[in-house]
Amino acid sequence: MTITLTAARTIIRTAMEHGAEAGMKPLSVVVLDAGGHVIAFERGDGASPGRFDIARGKAYAAVMMGMTGSALRHRAEAQGYFVQAMNGLFDGRFVPVPGGVLVRDGSGAVIGAVGVTGDTSENDAAAALAGIEAAGLTGEG
Amino acid sequence: MTITLTAARTIIRTAMEHGAEAGMKPLSVVVLDAGGHVIAFERGDGASPGRFDIARGKAYAAVMMGMTGSALRHRAEAQGYFVQAMNGLFDGRFVPVPGGVLVRDGSGAVIGAVGVTGDTSENDAAAALAGIEAAGLTGEG
Amino acid sequence: MTITLTAARTIIRTAMEHGAEAGMKPLSVVVLDAGGHVIAFERGDGASPGRFDIARGKAYAAVMMGMTGSALRHRAEAQGYFVQAMNGLFDGRFVPVPGGVLVRDGSGAVIGAVGVTGDTSENDAAAALAGIEAAGLTGEG
Amino acid sequence: MTITLTAARTIIRTAMEHGAEAGMKPLSVVVLDAGGHVIAFERGDGASPGRFDIARGKAYAAVMMGMTGSALRHRAEAQGYFVQAMNGLFDGRFVPVPGGVLVRDGSGAVIGAVGVTGDTSENDAAAALAGIEAAGLTGEG
Repeated sequence: MTITLTAARTIIRTAMEHGAEAGMKPLSVVVLDAGGHVIAFERGDGASPGRFDIARGKAYAAVMMGMTGSALRHRAEAQGYFVQAMNGLFDGRFVPVPGGVLVRDGSGAVIGAVGVTGDTSENDAAAALAGIEAAGLTGEG
Repeated sequence: MTITLTAARTIIRTAMEHGAEAGMKPLSVVVLDAGGHVIAFERGDGASPGRFDIARGKAYAAVMMGMTGSALRHRAEAQGYFVQAMNGLFDGRFVPVPGGVLVRDGSGAVIGAVGVTGDTSENDAAAALAGIEAAGLTGEG
Repeated sequence: MTITLTAARTIIRTAMEHGAEAGMKPLSVVVLDAGGHVIAFERGDGASPGRFDIARGKAYAAVMMGMTGSALRHRAEAQGYFVQAMNGLFDGRFVPVPGGVLVRDGSGAVIGAVGVTGDTSENDAAAALAGIEAAGLTGEG
Repeated sequence: MTITLTAARTIIRTAMEHGAEAGMKPLSVVVLDAGGHVIAFERGDGASPGRFDIARGKAYAAVMMGMTGSALRHRAEAQGYFVQAMNGLFDGRFVPVPGGVLVRDGSGAVIGAVGVTGDTSENDAAAALAGIEAAGLTGEG
């Protein structure tokens, strides 16, 4: 199973609406496939220009490691050299904080990841989960 | 003047619809701001995973050089080493073919670029121009 | 709104004069546009050769994240791995200390950033703010 | 002998004025020291955002090889693989075309290089030479 463009649009729109309704700063949202490649991305008006890189770095780290942003942050805090090693390995596309959320299908298989950035890491993750749920998929942040 | 997210959505949707109506292969479309940073991107279902990089490389080359994809291809064909030099300079994000289209505001200033990939370069450029026109902006491909 | 070359010259000259009058070490000053691209740079006589990279790294981090050098330093001190992750993401152009100052227009939109290096981080930031004010713009350091 | 900031300012202003008087497109001008490090740079209003990279790439190639942009272009045309090899060696900062001009002191020693971009390569080189001459130095393009 793969994430269709229609599903990716639903994820992005819902995550952005979730953020606006909750009074968050402008969000930027990326949807990656199971290989870490971009399906869709949108940057909210007023967000800083580096937001694509940050959103993708969160989602890319999650999907390439098969770990959530929360788990990656825990490991980054416990092992300082871990982030350095992963950065070298994945050519810099590695941001180990919440807001990188795995997407699973009904059987539990990882079919992609969503990356959200713009507000606090915890709020970013909540917006991602709202979007994934609206698309009928299961998120793990 | 900047390209809003609403305008970027119009550009992407119209370009994709243009391609579908004309019987083109699935298109992928990116919209960059005047600094070459991603505002929005969508990859059509069935398109290969490298399409984000190709679409961005077309638009990035156009906006960073201030030249259209057509002009860049002309120069690439005349000076073989030109592409190599630009690839090094712009870290590989440089695809000098049609489908990289400059976006101008009413005063003629470059406010971003659109990159389309999936069909022939000429068809890609036509889809980009259709999208830019639908957003009330001026494209130069 | 964009920072003109005339405004950039005013920023750089004023920042350097501010430093000389206050007895600071030779300063180096860069002005970046809203996409992080260089508009102008000058390195004071006697400054070390790496100063362009440091000045740009300060300003680039600020503009790409939409955060001041002061805020970035605070986060760097709180989360050690944050700097590593951002360094990978932005290809090493990331120096999270004061002296990276956002430039805003009258509406509050970020239109670029100034990076100053050469003296203490706090003095660097003060010189940047003096330059930005002299150009009739608003700095946030 | 080194290029002072005062001399660099003279080079840049004169090169830009030369271009404006000759009806050239907006120029961007960089001055590098003998180690290839940036002393000063200015980008003309209306020039595309990639102009810093191009200007530096021209001057960097000249100073690192001790060859003029004209000589480098000749070699690039004769040996296609040459540009690829140099790009790898110098991390992409290598643009082998006229507009990269060596700066020599009275004894003939290379003390830096000037890079100009914006118009034709030959016009870029002429503007660089005008600037270097105005600063009382000797240019070789």
